[in-house]
Amino acid sequence: VVPERVRQSVALSWDGRSLRLLDQTLLPAEERWIEPRDAAGTAAAIRTLSVRGAPLIGIAAAYGMAMEIAADPTPQGVERAWRTLRTARPTAVNLGHAVDRVRDAALTAAPDDIAAAARSEAEAVHAEEDAASAAIAVAGADLLEGARRALTLCNTGALAAGGSGSALAVLLELHGREPDLEVLVCETRPLLQGARLTVWELARAGVRHSLIVDSAAAGLLARREADAVIVGCDRVAANGDVANKVGTYGLALAAREAGVPFVVAGPASTLDPSVASGDQIAIEERGADEVRTVGGTALTLAGTSVRNPAFDVTPAALVSALVTERGVVHAPSAATLASLLGDGRRSEGGAGVSRSSQGSEDRLR
Amino acid sequence: VVPERVRQSVALSWDGRSLRLLDQTLLPAEERWIEPRDAAGTAAAIRTLSVRGAPLIGIAAAYGMAMEIAADPTPQGVERAWRTLRTARPTAVNLGHAVDRVRDAALTAAPDDIAAAARSEAEAVHAEEDAASAAIAVAGADLLEGARRALTLCNTGALAAGGSGSALAVLLELHGREPDLEVLVCETRPLLQGARLTVWELARAGVRHSLIVDSAAAGLLARREADAVIVGCDRVAANGDVANKVGTYGLALAAREAGVPFVVAGPASTLDPSVASGDQIAIEERGADEVRTVGGTALTLAGTSVRNPAFDVTPAALVSALVTERGVVHAPSAATLASLLGDGRRSEGGAGVSRSSQGSEDRLR
Repeated sequence: VVPERVRQSVALSWDGRSLRLLDQTLLPAEERWIEPRDAAGTAAAIRTLSVRGAPLIGIAAAYGMAMEIAADPTPQGVERAWRTLRTARPTAVNLGHAVDRVRDAALTAAPDDIAAAARSEAEAVHAEEDAASAAIAVAGADLLEGARRALTLCNTGALAAGGSGSALAVLLELHGREPDLEVLVCETRPLLQGARLTVWELARAGVRHSLIVDSAAAGLLARREADAVIVGCDRVAANGDVANKVGTYGLALAAREAGVPFVVAGPASTLDPSVASGDQIAIEERGADEVRTVGGTALTLAGTSVRNPAFDVTPAALVSALVTERGVVHAPSAATLASLLGDGRRSEGGAGVSRSSQGSEDRLR
Repeated sequence: VVPERVRQSVALSWDGRSLRLLDQTLLPAEERWIEPRDAAGTAAAIRTLSVRGAPLIGIAAAYGMAMEIAADPTPQGVERAWRTLRTARPTAVNLGHAVDRVRDAALTAAPDDIAAAARSEAEAVHAEEDAASAAIAVAGADLLEGARRALTLCNTGALAAGGSGSALAVLLELHGREPDLEVLVCETRPLLQGARLTVWELARAGVRHSLIVDSAAAGLLARREADAVIVGCDRVAANGDVANKVGTYGLALAAREAGVPFVVAGPASTLDPSVASGDQIAIEERGADEVRTVGGTALTLAGTSVRNPAFDVTPAALVSALVTERGVVHAPSAATLASLLGDGRRSEGGAGVSRSSQGSEDRLR
């Protein structure tokens, strides 16, 4: 019997009752799936980075809520699931959004409908993320049309999202139009999401690519070995400053110096109008062993002091365009982002905001 | 019997006849010495990075010449040694300078004096590099006086030179004057000379330090978490463009954006007036496995295509000052570098060139 509500992503599968997650800590060496049974198991998978990528974390957490609530469809069960999942990682914006939505849906349902409401809301979160990925992919590929060589950082593809992702989804869409596309992939120390995950996705999709160490990007851009840089985002402040994977800011500086467009792609849910500018975004500092070791191999003297900021902030002035499922914002600013966050009609009319359907007149080249 | 001409560096020892090199590929886990017997063995040690750092490569190559010529003190032996060593690595200029000097000394000696002339010249190369390190350390520390937090890349200390090194020698001298000095060390992918070697040297010297991934530097500089950036150099073009370890250029961009001085330190032997500008410097591309693996651990899919430039070029316009044993050049240019390469009197009078003894009026802050 095929379940009613199967939703299959590259790294997450939901059959209407149970969740399976591809353990991304083992990629690319091994493709092993794990099956969290409840909120605690799902929170553990998030905390250990078995599931990662802001949108995918949100989806997994929503299903973790649904499973816990199915087993205990009471207000107490809803609150327990919410408490267990909401703090699994401190900085993932989508996680908070997703579990709030599932809780609110469950608590406003009739007593007999609590479990079904939680499940429906989780599936809606997933469906919306899928749709956002697809729209971002098209809008970004329209924007970058003609680019033959792109440079990216971290993993922003199907392993990070319900659908095809954000920046990497754009590159895969572009590859469908430009089969000769070549992608330079920054390895993304310390956790090597570029080397482990983006390379894995590009190889599966048959996209030409080369891996580089992160510090090689600036020199390669100076030699114009890429036509565009495209990255994801973890949080975008009201003024357009972008918090993203550490290394993003350096790429933006090098892109500007080389005259290469610097494009940020992500769902509108990563826009945070409550934060005025990037200097108000807290930068998470992670553990020293991420830097001191790789796969159990010590890279330095034991006990070496480490600074390990997981993110940095790129000023809006360095961003050529922000690609969201609601449209493309050229040279993002407080005014254009406010316009994007308005309703569809306002967004379409806002200065600097273009709907992807407007097509070629908004290309970067 | 103690040999007449013992010269001992941290990572190289010469007893007048034979050479010992600390195998830097094994640091910091293991301190093992290797003993190349001839030019080919020395070239292999250079190629595999057992010996590294532009000045130390030059010294090792000079001794490799001397050993080969001692075994075959003929013009043919001299030429064979020269050919074997001169192309062991392409980017650093010191290697070529050193083997040219030993060859010229040997070929202009009387037939019975060929071996002795080669040995003397190699020892002179070593002695001059020792003296240059000491002078660079003092001149650079004068320049940076007052800096409490410095950021550096790669290894430019006693492991890279005959004496105490270049950029790291400056920091150790500065630490003698400012015991609270703290050094941010970029790990320096792919071969991790920062994590393996610079951390090892700083720990031995009791200097406070923290290790960072290379891509974290730009964001930390934007937050003014360092007062200065100081790096070494592998080749400086006539116009002041600097070829150095990959990642240098990105640091220079981030330093300029943050208003932090960007200082390059190296012996005058790294100046190459035969190269007009940085775009004429050959950038060595090294093997893919340096990027694909760390310590035998695979970081990505087997067979992944890699771009692995070992160096990049920083335009002179981004360099606040060049520190050499002949003096400090502020805002290096073709004119000021030509002045530095003139004789002592001309260099002292050259525009923009200051002798380190002039002291505090030339500080960057």
